[in-house]
Amino acid sequence: MERKLLHGQWQQVESDIAEDILTGRLSPKAQLPTEADLMERFGVGRHTIRRAISRLESRGLVLVEQGRGTFVRDSRLDYRLSERTRFSQNLLDQGREPLGQAIHEEVVPASELIAEALRLPHGEPVYHIVRRGFADEEPINYSHAYFPVRRFPGFDEARRSGRSVTLILAEYGIPDYIRLRTDIIVRLPTNEEAKQLCQSASQPVVALRKVDVDLKGTPISYSESIWPGERVQFSIDNTSQLLDVLARGDVI
Amino acid sequence: MERKLLHGQWQQVESDIAEDILTGRLSPKAQLPTEADLMERFGVGRHTIRRAISRLESRGLVLVEQGRGTFVRDSRLDYRLSERTRFSQNLLDQGREPLGQAIHEEVVPASELIAEALRLPHGEPVYHIVRRGFADEEPINYSHAYFPVRRFPGFDEARRSGRSVTLILAEYGIPDYIRLRTDIIVRLPTNEEAKQLCQSASQPVVALRKVDVDLKGTPISYSESIWPGERVQFSIDNTSQLLDVLARGDVI
Repeated sequence: MERKLLHGQWQQVESDIAEDILTGRLSPKAQLPTEADLMERFGVGRHTIRRAISRLESRGLVLVEQGRGTFVRDSRLDYRLSERTRFSQNLLDQGREPLGQAIHEEVVPASELIAEALRLPHGEPVYHIVRRGFADEEPINYSHAYFPVRRFPGFDEARRSGRSVTLILAEYGIPDYIRLRTDIIVRLPTNEEAKQLCQSASQPVVALRKVDVDLKGTPISYSESIWPGERVQFSIDNTSQLLDVLARGDVI
Repeated sequence: MERKLLHGQWQQVESDIAEDILTGRLSPKAQLPTEADLMERFGVGRHTIRRAISRLESRGLVLVEQGRGTFVRDSRLDYRLSERTRFSQNLLDQGREPLGQAIHEEVVPASELIAEALRLPHGEPVYHIVRRGFADEEPINYSHAYFPVRRFPGFDEARRSGRSVTLILAEYGIPDYIRLRTDIIVRLPTNEEAKQLCQSASQPVVALRKVDVDLKGTPISYSESIWPGERVQFSIDNTSQLLDVLARGDVI
C-alpha cells in the first residue's frame, strides 16, 4: 500500500471505499470487488478488509448479502422539503413505511427562541414533544417540537396516541398548514442524538429548524429535527413556482 | 478529568467545546471561559487548552482576539434557497462580499447524469466549469457546473471574465431563470474538496445538486456545489407561497 496511513489500515480501507460510494464512483446497488480483489488493491489481509466492510455496513453504506457479495446500499431517503412537508406522506410516496415513537412530553415555559418563533409571550406554556421517526423500522429522525398549550390543549396526549400532526391539527379545526421557514444546519451530533439515530458520533447529522403556520399565517409549531446525514437527502422541487410564472405570463 | 478520553486530551477539549458551540449552548459572539477556567474545567494544562483553541480557530468556530479573549464566531453564512437563488445577491444581502475564482474549464461530452438533467442527447458537448466562490475572501463553495455548448457558445470565456451567471445569461437573451430542483446531500468531503474549502477532511460538507431552467422550462445548467458544513446554513422561506394561498382565498 503506497498511500501514507493516517489511522489503522482498516480505517484507511473504510475511508477509501466510503469515498468511492459517497462521491458516486461506486453507484447505488453496485457490487463491491471481492475480498481477494480488495486485499490486492489495498495490499492488506483478509481480516483488515472484513473489519472495514463491517464498519461500512454499520454506517449503512453497504449491504452484505451472505453468499452473494457486498453491495452499495441504495437507501438514502429522498425527503422533499416543500411548503407542505408531511412526514408520513413523504415516506409513503417512496414506498417506505413511516412510524413514530413518543419519547418524552412535558409542558415548559417558552424560551426566548421558541417564543419568538411562535410569536408568543416569553414564558408562555408550550408542549415540548420529543419523538423519533422511523422509515421501515430504521430511525430516520429525532425531533423536539413545540406547540402552544393554550391553543392546543391536550395536544400531547393526542400525539402520544400515534395520530399524525396533520390529523390532530384537523381535529383542532386546522385543515391545512404551511411550512413558513426551514433552516438547514449540518453539524456533528451530540452523543444523545447519535445514540437515538443509531449512528456514529463522527458522522454528520442534518438539523432542520422549522416553523409551521396556519393559513392565516399564525405560527402553530416550532421544531428541530435531527436526521442522519448519510441516510437521507433533502430535495426542493420548484416546479409549481415555474408553473405559476408560466400561468402569470411573466415570460418575456 | 472524569470523562474517558477517546483521543488525546486536546481533542477531547476541542470536541467538548465544539459541541457546546454547534448545539448553541455557547451562543454566537459569546466569550469563551478564560484559559485558567478551561484548565480547571477539563483538568488539563495550558498547552492542551491552547492546542484545542487553535484547532477550533482553524475550524472557523472561534475567533481569538489578542488581549481581549476568545469568542464564538457568528459567521455561518445564511444561504437562501429559493426559486431564484443568486449567489452574489444572496451574499450582498448579508453584508458579505461575493467573489468567484475560475479554476478550470473544458468542453466534455455530457455523461448520462448530465444529459438527463439538461435533457440533451448523451454525449452532446457541454462546458464543464469548475470554480470557487468566496464570502469576504473565505472559500464558501467549490462547484462543478455544466452548460450546453450549442446554446451558449463562448459561455466558458464569458464566465472566466468574472461576470455572474445571471449577467451572462441575460446576454444570451435569458432575462430570468428558475431553480427547478435542488438536492441537498451531506457527506464527508473528498481530499480535493477539503483542500479547496480550506477545511478538515473529517468535517462534513453539503453538496447541492441543482438544475436551472429558463422560463419555458428548458434546462440551462446542471451543477454540484460543495459547501463547508460548519460555515453555512441554508434556509427556505415559503412566505410567498403562503401569500399566494391567501391571495387565492384557499382559506377555509
